[in-house]
Amino acid sequence: MNHVDINRPEPLGPEVILPPTKRGQRTRANLLAAAESVFATSGYHDASIVKITEEAGVGLGTFYVYFPGKKELFDQVVFDLNRRVRQAMSEASSGATTRLEAERAGFRAFFAFTAAHPALYSIVRQAEFVSPEAMRAHYTSIVDGYISGLLSAQAKGEVRDIDPTVASWALMGAGELIGMRWVQWEQQAGGRPEGVPDHVFEALMSFIETALAPSASVKEESV
Amino acid sequence: MNHVDINRPEPLGPEVILPPTKRGQRTRANLLAAAESVFATSGYHDASIVKITEEAGVGLGTFYVYFPGKKELFDQVVFDLNRRVRQAMSEASSGATTRLEAERAGFRAFFAFTAAHPALYSIVRQAEFVSPEAMRAHYTSIVDGYISGLLSAQAKGEVRDIDPTVASWALMGAGELIGMRWVQWEQQAGGRPEGVPDHVFEALMSFIETALAPSASVKEESV
Repeated sequence: MNHVDINRPEPLGPEVILPPTKRGQRTRANLLAAAESVFATSGYHDASIVKITEEAGVGLGTFYVYFPGKKELFDQVVFDLNRRVRQAMSEASSGATTRLEAERAGFRAFFAFTAAHPALYSIVRQAEFVSPEAMRAHYTSIVDGYISGLLSAQAKGEVRDIDPTVASWALMGAGELIGMRWVQWEQQAGGRPEGVPDHVFEALMSFIETALAPSASVKEESV
Repeated sequence: MNHVDINRPEPLGPEVILPPTKRGQRTRANLLAAAESVFATSGYHDASIVKITEEAGVGLGTFYVYFPGKKELFDQVVFDLNRRVRQAMSEASSGATTRLEAERAGFRAFFAFTAAHPALYSIVRQAEFVSPEAMRAHYTSIVDGYISGLLSAQAKGEVRDIDPTVASWALMGAGELIGMRWVQWEQQAGGRPEGVPDHVFEALMSFIETALAPSASVKEESV
């Protein structure tokens, strides 16, 4: 996944106003990290604000200084995960000189992120019910970055003439289920994967490369 | 998605023993249909057995003749949806003479099924928390059918030498997110799609065909 633009407008509603003090920012970050963990392990319904504040080591009263309620906290957790996964992919692929390099680096970063943050899958799937608008913003922002990458690669002749929107959703879906199968499920079975196994990664890259490569005839024309 | 084998062993645990009478089978089917609708719209946590029996038009006591509890009912709903979507794909692609034809028919049936059964997405996503084993069985059974199809197509030289397991997960992921974007989301926005729009379907088919097609050199060798 290449050229993910993390500088586009925040996808999840009103701008986040961070607390003015360093200490306040730390407390907010602690609450988000605790919420990520509690939502991922207990699920939204069983995740009480009390449980989250205990995990974060802050008082219950303090919670409401930072978030109006559980739903708003959940949205911010989705937003925070979304921002971080896009940043990880963007940073990984920023040094790439070809689309193929960018694709490899972006997908590798995506799988590494899901290995390090098992919450990503379970929280996004819960969002289907808890906050459909947050779920849509999550997928749409990743796809938008992917589309931009494909468009610029098409302009350079590195990708064939295929609908970049459809290709982006297809590729995101491929990455999502491969990450689910080889990162999330392996983790749930007690493994500690750092990403998907090499042979899976290479097969996926071959699949993607072949699907997107300029056709032989186009290549010859450009010689 | 081609050659989906619906005759493999039931994926969701103990064998289902159907009620001996026609009337009992009808009551069980009514409960499953009501549960599918209530789980999909209210979510597992808010879906009470009372709500489901009211929707099905049966007494609360009758419920326990058919299902031990809400979790077991949920599993049976997942199993039932899974069986039906595989059957729809299998029937659609059974008359196909080439892998390409089977692929088109199978995907078209999958999108038509998701349009007719919006519960599929929301119930499978809820299963992440409610019943991870049912979610895995759902995905795995679809992928297993897909792998068989790719293997026999590879044996006939209709698909290039690509890891069929990785390709199957990638293709299922592509279908899932394209169905989410162009069927589920369009429905939630008030549309009544019968499947994905033609241009999306054709772009996806082009993507898949190119990714799987035997390479030019292999084609020449076989001439």
